[in-house]
Amino acid sequence: MQLPSALLENAVNAFAGLPGIGKKTALRLVLHLLKQDEGQVAQFSETISRMRSDIKFCKRCHNLSDHDLCAICENKLRNQRLICVVESIKDVIAVENTQQFSGLYHVLGGVISPLDGIGPDSLTIDSLVERVQQQEVEELVFALNPNIQGDTTIFYIQKKLQHLPCKITTISRGVAFGGELEYADEMTLGRSMMNRLPVENYVK
Amino acid sequence: MQLPSALLENAVNAFAGLPGIGKKTALRLVLHLLKQDEGQVAQFSETISRMRSDIKFCKRCHNLSDHDLCAICENKLRNQRLICVVESIKDVIAVENTQQFSGLYHVLGGVISPLDGIGPDSLTIDSLVERVQQQEVEELVFALNPNIQGDTTIFYIQKKLQHLPCKITTISRGVAFGGELEYADEMTLGRSMMNRLPVENYVK
Repeated sequence: MQLPSALLENAVNAFAGLPGIGKKTALRLVLHLLKQDEGQVAQFSETISRMRSDIKFCKRCHNLSDHDLCAICENKLRNQRLICVVESIKDVIAVENTQQFSGLYHVLGGVISPLDGIGPDSLTIDSLVERVQQQEVEELVFALNPNIQGDTTIFYIQKKLQHLPCKITTISRGVAFGGELEYADEMTLGRSMMNRLPVENYVK
Repeated sequence: MQLPSALLENAVNAFAGLPGIGKKTALRLVLHLLKQDEGQVAQFSETISRMRSDIKFCKRCHNLSDHDLCAICENKLRNQRLICVVESIKDVIAVENTQQFSGLYHVLGGVISPLDGIGPDSLTIDSLVERVQQQEVEELVFALNPNIQGDTTIFYIQKKLQHLPCKITTISRGVAFGGELEYADEMTLGRSMMNRLPVENYVK
């Protein structure tokens, strides 16, 4: 695609560098910005660069935050003895949106995956163990993606915590609500047969 | 969607204000930028705001340009007596990409559309008439979208130019290459029957 201006081309390439945005979409976005006021566009780019430079990570749970401690950790109404362990910030947002969890979080920053060169030291596991020791945590709920890497990570952390009186659970796995048994894979269906739930838990 | 930080939320809203980008996509883009170096993100936003503040419109053809005259108008190898009239910059890019046109362009900035409050004065028609008078233009090719507004605009400009010895043409309309007659609408098929082309033109 030949563009009439180098400035335009740079802007298109900048947008096209973002995930899921091709050259045509990038051009559409840039031409949209060209129709806006200069002030509005300046504010757009200021917002992006300020976000990157000023945002912090919560010192306790490693969630994104505007301050040293994030809004969730600061909230005294939340259950301080219940911690949900997630892989990334996206998962914090996903769990928060269910409005079914009233405890705190701990963002690992990934899962153990030797093939990708991610060992336990690249994650925030030490800081999690410290939290469990100091905060008298009663329950640790793992909400990791249900795959080998997630399970390895749960196993590793469980080993590290086994001397502490902390209950360790994971969110339930099984056939998705609204799904059809016919199309569930064997692994999912097999495991959900193995880990049967009492009906009173299931339908409440 | 509840986000853990106001800075993050502002950035997500900034992206979500772009056409075709919803909140979920915006969050994905912002989290991608968070993984980049601070310098890279600063450069990204700098590129966008510089594009908006420094870009110019070509004084002659109203195309986007880095200088007073755009690269196409500056190019002495192009046919200076052939002008293709288009609605927008996107159309310049589309025609350029065909590599079938060696003349200059004129960007109208829209088409006459009284229902949308766009009259001839909102467009660059006066500057086009001036160009045709001064540059001894031999042919004006209209490449406007084939609809009522486009046809009205062609008709209006043709009236304005009828005292000048300039040939006025439009890109051909008819069934699209690779399309199927069966699915062509009646208007398109009817018109392309009316405006038959000699076979030697068609297959060359």
